[in-house]
Amino acid sequence: MIGLEQIREIARASPSKIVLLVIDGLGGLPHPETGRTELESAKTPNLDRLAREGICGMVDPVGPGITPGSAPGHLALFGYDPLKFTVGRGVLEALGVDFDLKEGDVAARGNFCTVDANGIITDRRAGRISTERCTELCQLLDGVDIDGVEALVSPVKEHRFVVVLRGAGLSSELSDSDPQKEGLAPKAIAPLSPLADKAANIANKFTKEAWARLAHRHPANMVLLRGFAHYPDFPKMSEVFRLNPAAIAFYPMYRGLAKVVGMELLPTGATIEEEFSTLVEHYNSYDFFFVHVKETDSAGEDGDFERKVRVIEEVDSVLPRLIDLDPDVFVVTADHSTPAVLKGHSWHPVPFLLRSKWCRRDGVDQFSERACVAGGLGRLPATDVMPLALANALKLKKFGA
Amino acid sequence: MIGLEQIREIARASPSKIVLLVIDGLGGLPHPETGRTELESAKTPNLDRLAREGICGMVDPVGPGITPGSAPGHLALFGYDPLKFTVGRGVLEALGVDFDLKEGDVAARGNFCTVDANGIITDRRAGRISTERCTELCQLLDGVDIDGVEALVSPVKEHRFVVVLRGAGLSSELSDSDPQKEGLAPKAIAPLSPLADKAANIANKFTKEAWARLAHRHPANMVLLRGFAHYPDFPKMSEVFRLNPAAIAFYPMYRGLAKVVGMELLPTGATIEEEFSTLVEHYNSYDFFFVHVKETDSAGEDGDFERKVRVIEEVDSVLPRLIDLDPDVFVVTADHSTPAVLKGHSWHPVPFLLRSKWCRRDGVDQFSERACVAGGLGRLPATDVMPLALANALKLKKFGA
Repeated sequence: MIGLEQIREIARASPSKIVLLVIDGLGGLPHPETGRTELESAKTPNLDRLAREGICGMVDPVGPGITPGSAPGHLALFGYDPLKFTVGRGVLEALGVDFDLKEGDVAARGNFCTVDANGIITDRRAGRISTERCTELCQLLDGVDIDGVEALVSPVKEHRFVVVLRGAGLSSELSDSDPQKEGLAPKAIAPLSPLADKAANIANKFTKEAWARLAHRHPANMVLLRGFAHYPDFPKMSEVFRLNPAAIAFYPMYRGLAKVVGMELLPTGATIEEEFSTLVEHYNSYDFFFVHVKETDSAGEDGDFERKVRVIEEVDSVLPRLIDLDPDVFVVTADHSTPAVLKGHSWHPVPFLLRSKWCRRDGVDQFSERACVAGGLGRLPATDVMPLALANALKLKKFGA
Repeated sequence: MIGLEQIREIARASPSKIVLLVIDGLGGLPHPETGRTELESAKTPNLDRLAREGICGMVDPVGPGITPGSAPGHLALFGYDPLKFTVGRGVLEALGVDFDLKEGDVAARGNFCTVDANGIITDRRAGRISTERCTELCQLLDGVDIDGVEALVSPVKEHRFVVVLRGAGLSSELSDSDPQKEGLAPKAIAPLSPLADKAANIANKFTKEAWARLAHRHPANMVLLRGFAHYPDFPKMSEVFRLNPAAIAFYPMYRGLAKVVGMELLPTGATIEEEFSTLVEHYNSYDFFFVHVKETDSAGEDGDFERKVRVIEEVDSVLPRLIDLDPDVFVVTADHSTPAVLKGHSWHPVPFLLRSKWCRRDGVDQFSERACVAGGLGRLPATDVMPLALANALKLKKFGA
């Protein structure tokens, strides 16, 4: 596989434009009654038109049999090998609440929990306190200064929060304090490398300080931390692909993943129509657009086959707004499958289409899992998507003499 | 490619069951008169049914254009990259005679040969002595103790035998004593690394001792050794896949390969029916079954097109016994092609089918080389087979958050 280092050497800036539309969790499985997947059940004249005018294939987000989380699924589409470019749990959690992480930050996932008089955990989730309560408690902890390191605390949902340690020389190689079961005391956070002594010390002091400040806040009278991770220092798309990329995504997590690879985040609304309008509005200012549609995945996760079909049809109905822009390269695919019948992410490959003037059309005339199997691109890893898009936009020079 | 290390982190034990049926050398080439391959010529209603109810594809055992030996062909199907997990010649020879190798053992392939009064080789195969004679001579050498290392000698066939050196601290990085031609003396075995001095010394002393013991056994009055290899210390399937795997194979070599990856070896009979009965009998005790059918390969090696067709039909006729068990995942494929017209292993990809509740069926309604090309899985490396089987058995967790 060609790596980012090689791509960097052959990438060239050009005025041509690429639109990458990611329909989250698009891939599906047949409905037991009709034998048709969500995408096969939906009426999609515009997606079918793009498929007919383009070249199709089936994409493996991480690899055959591997069910991707959101981070590997997206990073692979952005051209970053998901086995090499990994994003830790704490960082994902912070991205998910739109926390503005900076290089050097160490983030962890936190739980408010209940401890008894002896410091023994009696409820790892503090009775699932309300998000309002969580927000109030986070304010109590937010901004604590520990030996010159700032602890920034943001609520997530119910008992969940994120803590970000901001200061010089902090390693993220730390063990969890969460023992993952009740009846035990929170564990001391241990350094997992010799360079992590300082960070472990800070994290333990934060826990101690939290205990003090939460003393009278039963049931949420203690915190548990896990998944310490550094904000990753990935090469930026502008450097490796010589693109000026923008992201249009309503959900924080996906904006966060776009930011990690250096995309400009465009403010947008919650609906598909608003997202597409944002693209139209900024079309002249960037040469690469990542557009993220979330609701297909949500419907799949909920096991709501019909709703997923309707979201796909909604995407299709608004699609002409983007088609009318006639971008040099138009890519439609997904970060992974989320079949409604499985109610979750799955390992199944996802349909893929690429339309450009130079795409070598195949005979596929419908955008669906089954039709794309016969596509001209065959089956390909998601990390091939960016090189293909760049090539079709004539943004890659010859490799070798 | 995702490696065993990553798989290990997402594998989870579950009660679901996987059956991997390997029809050795199944892939073929068209008969010059009919234009149909062995598999296409055979009546296979049950395999066709599985193909119809499952998802199909074409598997490359090692890589396009590469003709696999038995070891890489099987290891790849077991999920072990055959370019990384190699089994040496001596070890394969030992596995082929059911020698119970242990960790640390060093095995080599031996030939009885003829030397003249000056120690010059006049016949590298000692006139192809009978297997009975070979067995008798092996008894003469078996169990020799050399400086605390035990030399275990087992007959193979005609002039061929296996020697296993068992003792502490033996390296297998040794040169051959076999000069590969006549008119020369056997070469001294040289250490190929500084750590192999002891092993070289032992191996040379063994050769000397053999010469002494065989002095009056013309034409088999000397031995030639080659292919020294360590019994490999591969990670076990129970560790990396969290499976409780069993192997059902009549031929020693395949039992040996299954043992190398930690499968339990179930005693079975020589016929396909007996093998399948063994599976039925032990179905409740394991969650993964490797079933090996050898005769397709033997018929192909013999260039016997018709016999290969008949063996395929025999497999098909007994198949309902396994289908009736309704395993969560049923995989049928081969370790490589053995086209009768080529009378040997070949590089051609092999047909593959996987049936499970979650397999995303394709339109393939026949199990054959040509039909599987249009399968929903496209073309895939054999190392993807295990991740796919595990995923379809819901034995893999999400990768990344």
